[in-house]
Amino acid sequence: MNNSVPFEGPVCPLPLSNHEQILIGHGSGGDLTHHLIRKVFQNYLGNDILSAGNDAALIQLANFQTKQDRLVVSTDAHIITPLFFAGGDIGRLAVCGTVNDVAMMGAKPLYLTATFILEEGFLISDLEKILVSIQKACLEAGVQIVAADTKVTEKGKSDGMFISTTGFGLAPNNRLIAGDQANVGDAVLLTGPIGNHGIAIAEARGNLGFKSGVKSDIAPLNQMLAALLAKVPDVHVMRDPTRGGLATTLVEIAQQSAVTIELIEDLIPIDPPVRNACAMLGLDPLYLANEGKAIIILPQARVELALRILKKHNYGKNAARIGTVTSSEKSRLLLRTPFGTRRVLEMLTGEMLPRIC
Amino acid sequence: MNNSVPFEGPVCPLPLSNHEQILIGHGSGGDLTHHLIRKVFQNYLGNDILSAGNDAALIQLANFQTKQDRLVVSTDAHIITPLFFAGGDIGRLAVCGTVNDVAMMGAKPLYLTATFILEEGFLISDLEKILVSIQKACLEAGVQIVAADTKVTEKGKSDGMFISTTGFGLAPNNRLIAGDQANVGDAVLLTGPIGNHGIAIAEARGNLGFKSGVKSDIAPLNQMLAALLAKVPDVHVMRDPTRGGLATTLVEIAQQSAVTIELIEDLIPIDPPVRNACAMLGLDPLYLANEGKAIIILPQARVELALRILKKHNYGKNAARIGTVTSSEKSRLLLRTPFGTRRVLEMLTGEMLPRIC
Repeated sequence: MNNSVPFEGPVCPLPLSNHEQILIGHGSGGDLTHHLIRKVFQNYLGNDILSAGNDAALIQLANFQTKQDRLVVSTDAHIITPLFFAGGDIGRLAVCGTVNDVAMMGAKPLYLTATFILEEGFLISDLEKILVSIQKACLEAGVQIVAADTKVTEKGKSDGMFISTTGFGLAPNNRLIAGDQANVGDAVLLTGPIGNHGIAIAEARGNLGFKSGVKSDIAPLNQMLAALLAKVPDVHVMRDPTRGGLATTLVEIAQQSAVTIELIEDLIPIDPPVRNACAMLGLDPLYLANEGKAIIILPQARVELALRILKKHNYGKNAARIGTVTSSEKSRLLLRTPFGTRRVLEMLTGEMLPRIC
Repeated sequence: MNNSVPFEGPVCPLPLSNHEQILIGHGSGGDLTHHLIRKVFQNYLGNDILSAGNDAALIQLANFQTKQDRLVVSTDAHIITPLFFAGGDIGRLAVCGTVNDVAMMGAKPLYLTATFILEEGFLISDLEKILVSIQKACLEAGVQIVAADTKVTEKGKSDGMFISTTGFGLAPNNRLIAGDQANVGDAVLLTGPIGNHGIAIAEARGNLGFKSGVKSDIAPLNQMLAALLAKVPDVHVMRDPTRGGLATTLVEIAQQSAVTIELIEDLIPIDPPVRNACAMLGLDPLYLANEGKAIIILPQARVELALRILKKHNYGKNAARIGTVTSSEKSRLLLRTPFGTRRVLEMLTGEMLPRIC
């Protein structure tokens, strides 16, 4: 849906039931495009800003508290396959992924934009399921979609649906949460068990060969993180370990902050079905994707309070301390095993499971 | 390139020359992704905000003049085929399309985000050509890319490259330029000849069967429109006639403003090679896509001054008045032909040329 399409025009003469699949003409910008927007997209995503029907959305800056606030912006393409899986779908993923990236900067996510690339022949009923999912996730996260665009490729030139989302929100100027802020002595927290998203996607692709019962952990973390920051404003780093998993994300942080981070393997929460699936498939859960978890690095003195706040929230009830920033001699990630040995963890090499998000 | 990837890490051990095509692992979020970002994307798109390497970009709101300003946001997916054509490529298109949508609201475009969906096997050399083109277009338009993300699909699951861009900028609060602001008596201006983009794409696809010599008109219009608004602040509507062409866009405006717009066919600028190509192919130039043109609707008394300003700019040197808002009785677009007859123009029906932008 290009914003230049007015939503308030006369009723389109083409009933959608005449073509229950996406046609190439739905991307033409002409009457079919207008019809798709009015009859489908607008039903689920409509709001005052989006529905104004101009080339761009207008947002009053008066929404912003002070000129000292900072605008926080993040963008992601979502090409996950399959589109539907245990625990979510591409719609929930597209909203939560971007909401979380904005929230990881200590910002309050406010608005999203979305582009939809649809393959000719895509079922309108599947599009509607995904839009319902987007609508629910936006409601849960407290964000609005303010601008959107839809394009259509010929059959075989895309893969059902790709969604790109851009999110923006506001952060107070006095809050500095970033990958280069980890200090020696800081504690490393994780908001819950890892690997659920990766295993759920592998299973949805038929790659497991057995039923794991694992669901994706996709969730908007912004409300929980806002509650944390309200009481613990001196958090140093927050980041969600998505593609590349916990290990890759912590290597990134170790490099950005030029510190050694040491994880205690026994303390890293992993659900038993995920652990079993990893054992059977030879996957390392430290490199599996997550979509509803946050790494939080903060001063040692704040650990108890932070865990108490996180555990009150559904998405943080299994939060745990998993490690420490131990030195500034080398930029590296170490894993202390149950046998007391330590090994260096590197970034994910090559690909373990592509198109995971 | 996910922003969570730090650009300032140690040199990656994998020389890019070992794999001059995009591999599925370039989308894994691991070391190949980091390498692609450092060695390719960062070379062309790097700036202080983008290179901070966090989950989201931070922008000082102090850049904004007053709390009364409004944030203007627009988003577009670009799936054009082929990726390279006379007059431009998908990179220039992705920047200009979004810059123009923000500018059409009377706003100053400041920042862009971009997502790249790449097909496995895509040539790194082609990626670099497109990034150079993005870099040049950003420089010309005076905007920065502040956040980006790259994903990779398996071969055959996408079509080379898709780019989604989101743009944002600022508009003064006292400026109301929108599709519903056309008034009876207003003049309709067009900044230059129509149909060049549509014919250039048709030719690049081998659909013409002859050499037209036509180049796409892709251009960032924001500097020219800012110059116009500085002297003529009381513009009522600005919109770029992209997908669906001049006719579809003016039907949209007629519906939003609930007015009749009358075009004088003889006054609509069309380059002779475009006219010839349309005649040979049976295409109607009024429905061909444009990527560097604006429709401007403003009070009759401002026409002369507006045209004088537009004609000083390279992208407006063939600007012309093409019609008038004639009544508020019906929401429709009329075309007065050279024979003095009038016919009603509708929106584009079905599709004339898909994947045009």
